[in-house]
Amino acid sequence: MKELEERLRELIAAVGPMDEKAMAAARARQERLAKPPGSLGRLEELSIQLAGIAGKTFVQIRKPWLLVFAADNGVVAEGVASAPQSVTCMQTINLTKARTGASVLAKHFGCGITVCDVGVNADISDSDVLNRKIARGTRNIAEGPAMTREQALTAILTGAELAGETQADAIGVGEMGIGNTTTSAAVLACLLGAEPEAVTGRGGGLTQPAFLRKQQVVFRALMTNMPDRSDPVDVLSKVGGLDIAAMCGAFLGAAASRRPAVIDGYISVVAALCAVRLCPSVREYLVPSHASAEPGYLLAINALGLRPMLLLDMRLGEGSGCPLAFQIMDAACTIINDMATFDEAGIDDCYLDPIREAEHG
Amino acid sequence: MKELEERLRELIAAVGPMDEKAMAAARARQERLAKPPGSLGRLEELSIQLAGIAGKTFVQIRKPWLLVFAADNGVVAEGVASAPQSVTCMQTINLTKARTGASVLAKHFGCGITVCDVGVNADISDSDVLNRKIARGTRNIAEGPAMTREQALTAILTGAELAGETQADAIGVGEMGIGNTTTSAAVLACLLGAEPEAVTGRGGGLTQPAFLRKQQVVFRALMTNMPDRSDPVDVLSKVGGLDIAAMCGAFLGAAASRRPAVIDGYISVVAALCAVRLCPSVREYLVPSHASAEPGYLLAINALGLRPMLLLDMRLGEGSGCPLAFQIMDAACTIINDMATFDEAGIDDCYLDPIREAEHG
Repeated sequence: MKELEERLRELIAAVGPMDEKAMAAARARQERLAKPPGSLGRLEELSIQLAGIAGKTFVQIRKPWLLVFAADNGVVAEGVASAPQSVTCMQTINLTKARTGASVLAKHFGCGITVCDVGVNADISDSDVLNRKIARGTRNIAEGPAMTREQALTAILTGAELAGETQADAIGVGEMGIGNTTTSAAVLACLLGAEPEAVTGRGGGLTQPAFLRKQQVVFRALMTNMPDRSDPVDVLSKVGGLDIAAMCGAFLGAAASRRPAVIDGYISVVAALCAVRLCPSVREYLVPSHASAEPGYLLAINALGLRPMLLLDMRLGEGSGCPLAFQIMDAACTIINDMATFDEAGIDDCYLDPIREAEHG
Repeated sequence: MKELEERLRELIAAVGPMDEKAMAAARARQERLAKPPGSLGRLEELSIQLAGIAGKTFVQIRKPWLLVFAADNGVVAEGVASAPQSVTCMQTINLTKARTGASVLAKHFGCGITVCDVGVNADISDSDVLNRKIARGTRNIAEGPAMTREQALTAILTGAELAGETQADAIGVGEMGIGNTTTSAAVLACLLGAEPEAVTGRGGGLTQPAFLRKQQVVFRALMTNMPDRSDPVDVLSKVGGLDIAAMCGAFLGAAASRRPAVIDGYISVVAALCAVRLCPSVREYLVPSHASAEPGYLLAINALGLRPMLLLDMRLGEGSGCPLAFQIMDAACTIINDMATFDEAGIDDCYLDPIREAEHG
């Protein structure tokens, strides 16, 4: 246990600052490109962020990778999910066969995928699923802690290790786990001190009675466990899940190995918030993708000080927003790498004049 | 002139309704795919729209194409643009060399591009630019009509013809024309009956004095010309530009030839609104891309009843939002074409149960 805590401290310490020199060079190049200054908005900002992460001006997103963490959540016993627990196992396997939402997109857009079982409540014999099972599902958070602190630490370190060893230039973080919008809601309510009503949504498509039950379950989970919100590991172990904990670790591991980490939807943004609470520098490595239709998403992304890039009303999970986010990152790299400068375009840097005029006159 | 009016009427009549049968089949397939119903949000809606346009369930975006219409605008004489008029000509040529923002993205994402001069105020000898010049720029809208009705009709028909003859399965509509956020603001203010202040932005980056002047110019253009807002051709000819008119035609031509037409930013959305005012059925063929940072954009996209898919704070124009929108359309096609159904995924259609429960109990 002491050793696990020490490894987490080392992981956090390994997250370095942005390369300010590379960012300044990228910013200077953006100002020389033949366009009104700032007119490519967040594509410009992204190119500067990616330069800061990679430590160089010219970055490419050649090999993006999606990490999907699968686990079951004991809280499904409360009737808070619209699908049976067996779906976790089936879709975990289907994710490796490019048959689910996120995995068909990953395949289509040339993005690698690793599906890692950190806690599915079934024996998975399929060799395409990476077996890092920590437990066969968690316990019911409405009745007690989801897992031990040791299990939570192990899940975080497992996610971090996987992210760290993945050969990729950008990492997306997704999940598969029936019941995990409930655990995410409990974690988020605790971290933000928010009301269960504000963070609880209908997940896969709950009926009104089940939706009200879900809000009550989030409330009970918090009352029963009283997690210490200043200690994200305590929060994850008491009201989280093995999936969220491993995802939190993946964000830490991506940052520690200086790769951008893409947030998918609700569960992913809650895991990212846990990572940032453990290590504020992780925030600089995060790239948002789509605005999840789950109502708690906006609270979490606002708490991170980020804004989604895609408005697609998606709420599937699995990392399904990441392949499109990789395309946007790729676009940002293309702009800074391939656009002509004012000199090359045969244009005086005329666009800069009004700015100077505004600044000086 | 009579002949031009007749050709416009024929173009409008050629825009057919959606194929309801193909849409129903696409909707039915989305319901059978292994995911919570509706959980892929707008990717599902897009796949249904694309089916309705193409008249079949399984669509692919294999050959997307960007049409860029270039023209000069006499209103630059009022000092309403942050760049000199010569930039239109230079960037029109640069667009064909994959050196500008939109064209590097188009090349990178495998999207074709045609750059068409409908009114650049210079002789362009570069053979990569398609010469359909109608006039060497328009007149100053603050002092009188931009062009004759005949010129406006010719520009619309030119855009429609180009869109119609472009061999592509999706068409993006962009522009290059210094001064065209001013003409777009005047057209939009007229069509919506909006105040000039509500539709005028800083374009490429105006100083505060130039920005106030631009608002006054939009007001003067409307007062001087008094366009008939029930007649979009009158509006385009009096306070529009050859670029916007040709783009309006391109939206009509894409719809008439049953291809989806992607809206880029501010000028593009104003042109799309003109097309829909001429022919309401065009709306079904429109696909929005990004939310332009120009303030009038939201008014125009709301008037169309559409919502942008990308939040990137872009305001470059050129069609720069289209290549990323094509990627999203491609993602929508991939989902409906490649995802497993519940049967194929080995899952009972368990997600449907709570819906039925909600509907019947």
